[in-house]
Amino acid sequence: MAVRAAVAGASGYAGGEVLRLLLAHPGIEIGALTGNTNAGERLGALQPHLLPLADRVLAPTTPETLAGHDVVFLALPHGQSAAVAEQLGPDVLVVDMGADFRLKDAADWERFYGSAHAGTWPYGLPELPGARAALEGSKRIAVPGCYPTAVTLALFPAYAAALAEPEAVVVAASGTSGAGKAPKAHLLGSEVMGSMAPYGVGGGHRHTPEMMQNLAAAAGEPVTVSFTPTLAPMPRGILATCSAKARPGVTAEAVRAAYTKAFADEPFVHLLPEGRWPATASVYGSNAVQVQVAYDEAAGRIIAISAIDNLTKGTAGGALQSMNIALGLDETTGLSTIGVAP
Amino acid sequence: MAVRAAVAGASGYAGGEVLRLLLAHPGIEIGALTGNTNAGERLGALQPHLLPLADRVLAPTTPETLAGHDVVFLALPHGQSAAVAEQLGPDVLVVDMGADFRLKDAADWERFYGSAHAGTWPYGLPELPGARAALEGSKRIAVPGCYPTAVTLALFPAYAAALAEPEAVVVAASGTSGAGKAPKAHLLGSEVMGSMAPYGVGGGHRHTPEMMQNLAAAAGEPVTVSFTPTLAPMPRGILATCSAKARPGVTAEAVRAAYTKAFADEPFVHLLPEGRWPATASVYGSNAVQVQVAYDEAAGRIIAISAIDNLTKGTAGGALQSMNIALGLDETTGLSTIGVAP
Amino acid sequence: MAVRAAVAGASGYAGGEVLRLLLAHPGIEIGALTGNTNAGERLGALQPHLLPLADRVLAPTTPETLAGHDVVFLALPHGQSAAVAEQLGPDVLVVDMGADFRLKDAADWERFYGSAHAGTWPYGLPELPGARAALEGSKRIAVPGCYPTAVTLALFPAYAAALAEPEAVVVAASGTSGAGKAPKAHLLGSEVMGSMAPYGVGGGHRHTPEMMQNLAAAAGEPVTVSFTPTLAPMPRGILATCSAKARPGVTAEAVRAAYTKAFADEPFVHLLPEGRWPATASVYGSNAVQVQVAYDEAAGRIIAISAIDNLTKGTAGGALQSMNIALGLDETTGLSTIGVAP
Amino acid sequence: MAVRAAVAGASGYAGGEVLRLLLAHPGIEIGALTGNTNAGERLGALQPHLLPLADRVLAPTTPETLAGHDVVFLALPHGQSAAVAEQLGPDVLVVDMGADFRLKDAADWERFYGSAHAGTWPYGLPELPGARAALEGSKRIAVPGCYPTAVTLALFPAYAAALAEPEAVVVAASGTSGAGKAPKAHLLGSEVMGSMAPYGVGGGHRHTPEMMQNLAAAAGEPVTVSFTPTLAPMPRGILATCSAKARPGVTAEAVRAAYTKAFADEPFVHLLPEGRWPATASVYGSNAVQVQVAYDEAAGRIIAISAIDNLTKGTAGGALQSMNIALGLDETTGLSTIGVAP
Repeated sequence: MAVRAAVAGASGYAGGEVLRLLLAHPGIEIGALTGNTNAGERLGALQPHLLPLADRVLAPTTPETLAGHDVVFLALPHGQSAAVAEQLGPDVLVVDMGADFRLKDAADWERFYGSAHAGTWPYGLPELPGARAALEGSKRIAVPGCYPTAVTLALFPAYAAALAEPEAVVVAASGTSGAGKAPKAHLLGSEVMGSMAPYGVGGGHRHTPEMMQNLAAAAGEPVTVSFTPTLAPMPRGILATCSAKARPGVTAEAVRAAYTKAFADEPFVHLLPEGRWPATASVYGSNAVQVQVAYDEAAGRIIAISAIDNLTKGTAGGALQSMNIALGLDETTGLSTIGVAP
Repeated sequence: MAVRAAVAGASGYAGGEVLRLLLAHPGIEIGALTGNTNAGERLGALQPHLLPLADRVLAPTTPETLAGHDVVFLALPHGQSAAVAEQLGPDVLVVDMGADFRLKDAADWERFYGSAHAGTWPYGLPELPGARAALEGSKRIAVPGCYPTAVTLALFPAYAAALAEPEAVVVAASGTSGAGKAPKAHLLGSEVMGSMAPYGVGGGHRHTPEMMQNLAAAAGEPVTVSFTPTLAPMPRGILATCSAKARPGVTAEAVRAAYTKAFADEPFVHLLPEGRWPATASVYGSNAVQVQVAYDEAAGRIIAISAIDNLTKGTAGGALQSMNIALGLDETTGLSTIGVAP
Repeated sequence: MAVRAAVAGASGYAGGEVLRLLLAHPGIEIGALTGNTNAGERLGALQPHLLPLADRVLAPTTPETLAGHDVVFLALPHGQSAAVAEQLGPDVLVVDMGADFRLKDAADWERFYGSAHAGTWPYGLPELPGARAALEGSKRIAVPGCYPTAVTLALFPAYAAALAEPEAVVVAASGTSGAGKAPKAHLLGSEVMGSMAPYGVGGGHRHTPEMMQNLAAAAGEPVTVSFTPTLAPMPRGILATCSAKARPGVTAEAVRAAYTKAFADEPFVHLLPEGRWPATASVYGSNAVQVQVAYDEAAGRIIAISAIDNLTKGTAGGALQSMNIALGLDETTGLSTIGVAP
Repeated sequence: MAVRAAVAGASGYAGGEVLRLLLAHPGIEIGALTGNTNAGERLGALQPHLLPLADRVLAPTTPETLAGHDVVFLALPHGQSAAVAEQLGPDVLVVDMGADFRLKDAADWERFYGSAHAGTWPYGLPELPGARAALEGSKRIAVPGCYPTAVTLALFPAYAAALAEPEAVVVAASGTSGAGKAPKAHLLGSEVMGSMAPYGVGGGHRHTPEMMQNLAAAAGEPVTVSFTPTLAPMPRGILATCSAKARPGVTAEAVRAAYTKAFADEPFVHLLPEGRWPATASVYGSNAVQVQVAYDEAAGRIIAISAIDNLTKGTAGGALQSMNIALGLDETTGLSTIGVAP
């Protein structure tokens, strides 16, 4: 019998991507689609690429419309997920694609989000040690942020193998869909095409503490992250260029061995052959992660680079991957490692 | 038992797209992949988005490497398909994504291609009247050109219903992948980003006679086509803006009725609700066709616009759709109407 | 003594482009810069590319702030220019980059804009026969729309030489800056990158009557225009693909001769050598117009294609060109025919 | 009397940009334009944006064609400049936009370029301490690489003020024109649009020793640079995100003061007001540099980010700026700080 899934926030980019993937998932029946200001509109006008759902009408996001589903995906502004989850009850699988339940440290949450900490749910990055066990059978999933997904996968093997000093430097370029669908002047096509621009420089981006949390868990000690996100002239994709000083005695072989081991059995993470480097185009629309690592002997640094699709592996694909685990399905069900290129 | 398919020309854009779609086709086993100058290389280096095939090595395009398959896709420069098909024999389904067997008129072929006409194969545009019958059980398929696919689907209902004068005007914008993967200076990213540019103006584009052939068949009389292709700064997609003078007495209602009827049962062609217009982003990576039509009373013209993905419905998706028919499979097997957007 | 110029609407794209060009104009001193919701902000935050004006503060758009200038450029929403011009008095040169004073026919205005007709000012397309004489010494200039600039320059020679039937078909692709800086969801970078999409199809675009007015003046008879604008994934540029049926007896030589003659002495319009076609990248940031024309004998049509920068020749450059004429300066002062490419 | 300038390598991107800027330089007369495989072709076909030079024909690059000029710009593959300069004699100002004379250390040259070191010429980055004095009256100029221009300007103030530890980490995104005009498959528009991709990772990029040379001079001690260049989907622009650990006791105020002082009198470098960050779009086509700096207290790092146009300030604009100094002209002659945006 099919699992019945609802999507709260179906008019935005995260919601649209969840629907795109759910349509291709063999075990899911798509139930309620809800919105806020768009309630009452047809999905065909809001998400014209989702042809099979063109005639579906958005319901308002209420306990009534979301009731009666096995899984509910939340693509809501942060701060709203706790209340919705409570109304849904403990037997419904709630997959939160927002930030509310990612951070363990309440002080971090309050400093970066300026509101009370809602709690912590099992973290939906299955590739991390121990993550799958926590997700199995869980009724709550906190989907990681897009940048933390890319950065954590690029760097955790180096920390887990004690190869890197606990001070990481990350510069990541994201496609504009990461900034959402709400119209803002600096996100207009006229502004972003032909331009690379940083934002949230100097440690202010809200994804920073999430990266530090993940890398500290891998390292067994605190890890600082100097994180600079940049907006790139493309709709999708994150390229995360990450580095850290190598610990004394580290060799290129040891680095490669650590990454080979970390991803040996991972269905979605592809450590590229030596000499080839990730490109966001290669993972466009797919749940795949491309990773490559190098040891720059002259600079004494390990350079690890990952490419993901911010909406797929970075949001909705990661959400379905974790949902599969929580539901006891094969983890790869309905998810592809094939990019749409060129 | 799975159908075994080979792809000749697997390193280019058409070949890569066939493989992307074949990987998602439940009834196909991917056999030989062949190339010319790239023979001996791993597919991972040539098509890094096709992760499941990364370790496959390209064989040379020879009768031996292509032997032993049920279906062979040809993504070869024009002029080479006839010889390969002959070597494969009459029992192998040969799907030619090149131009060799599209035109019925030998004089047209010779004028536009400058070589001897190879013949005509059943034409792989199932939406045309009579096309499915010709494809069923066929062992040869001529996949339409990308522009003719977009233009024919936009205009044939108007001609089939005798609503339009036999002089069509078409301006189409194509993504750069339509120009292929061979490196040329005018196709460099530096040249195409930020630029719209026409080419083949004045009737010289080789897809012109193919459009005329299709529209004449629908109209029952010769139809001239003034065709101007333009290169747009995007990797994929064709937007075809087509128009023709309305015959006397035509009404907006009659136009809409003709299009509604033409596409009523088509699984891949979506006539948009009135007031909405196609966008190439909505069909990115999918086999869907978005069509809209309007009657401009002041100018006395029918305006029909279609959007397709030039590599999917315009090439490889159209090829698989026709293959499905030829093999007796459900026509939609392995093909999606869901675009990757934004 | 320098001419003192004010810009009303300095925070938008048209206003910013006027300022970019005025900064390079040797005879102009930049006076008041005004805005509406942005009054009080520094220009550096609104137009970060205009470094020399970074510390200038926007004043509100009032008669007082605009007083005391020799020239006032209006980059305002339509419907507001008449009142501002009246307040400025008859001795100030008012250059309206909006639509208010372009159309001669009050009925056309009312049908397309839904308000009362404000009147008609000398039309700022100097390349049209008689236009320069009307601009010389004028204190009012109606700057043409961006699409009518591109389309009129592409087609008027054919009509002035009586070569074309009075039914033109135009499909034009515009960069997104033509849609302005007000944030709207469909203009987000995520939506426009990778997509070609039409709008205003079927005769509804407000630039249509302006094109018809210009071509009718050249033809000496009414000319219908079937106009389809499309949004292209680039910030700037218009490529206008225009065609009309050739009158009986027309030859390719006659067509070329008409265009050669029409643009022989034009400083900004460049009729390309035969065999080369316009590209918007070539006129990026410049006041140049690239034009090419062909006679498609098989279809019996004249195909004329032009490329402009919609913000430069299509708006602010055209405005300065006409201002130069009105002020008795050399028409090319401060304007360039050199594009920024690649 | 005008200075007469020749450009060797006029068909490529660097040569084209030199010509674009020379056309706007009031004291220069453009003499010979030379090419290699393109000799004999008209510039209009090769650089269609340079309308005033459309009818100029490329000469072969020989001592004869380059003779008789006051200034010769070399836009040649590396390794060719020494021989050409010798033939031109000591009285001609030779401005080398290639790499041949940038590095002081012969061993560095040999390791990164694999050939014999040609020597060192005065280095054309006037903003560096002492650079202007070396350029005044010089007959030889080594124009810096595009990445070293962006990175050096972002970081040298921190090193000159002894604020940063001598281990810099740089991730820079470049537009595709930095990779040149020679057609290569990975530079096709189809490949680069929608994709961010690193290259030369791990210390291998040839611009690395040049950055280290510049920063070491500022620091008075060796500085290592971990440099990762990435290719961004845009034609022009470099965004360099640079960081280094702050020395003990460093404060945000001290960092800002160092940058304010370093650029106080610089005509082309604009230290942005606090809270605003560079964007490549803002310097498109201009010689301006936007810089911003922050002190990330949590990570203990100074983050300095610069944006330049790789072809203008990063190549041809920097070349003209240094030429102006060498010729005794005002340094800003013919150069603009106004970007073409949006």
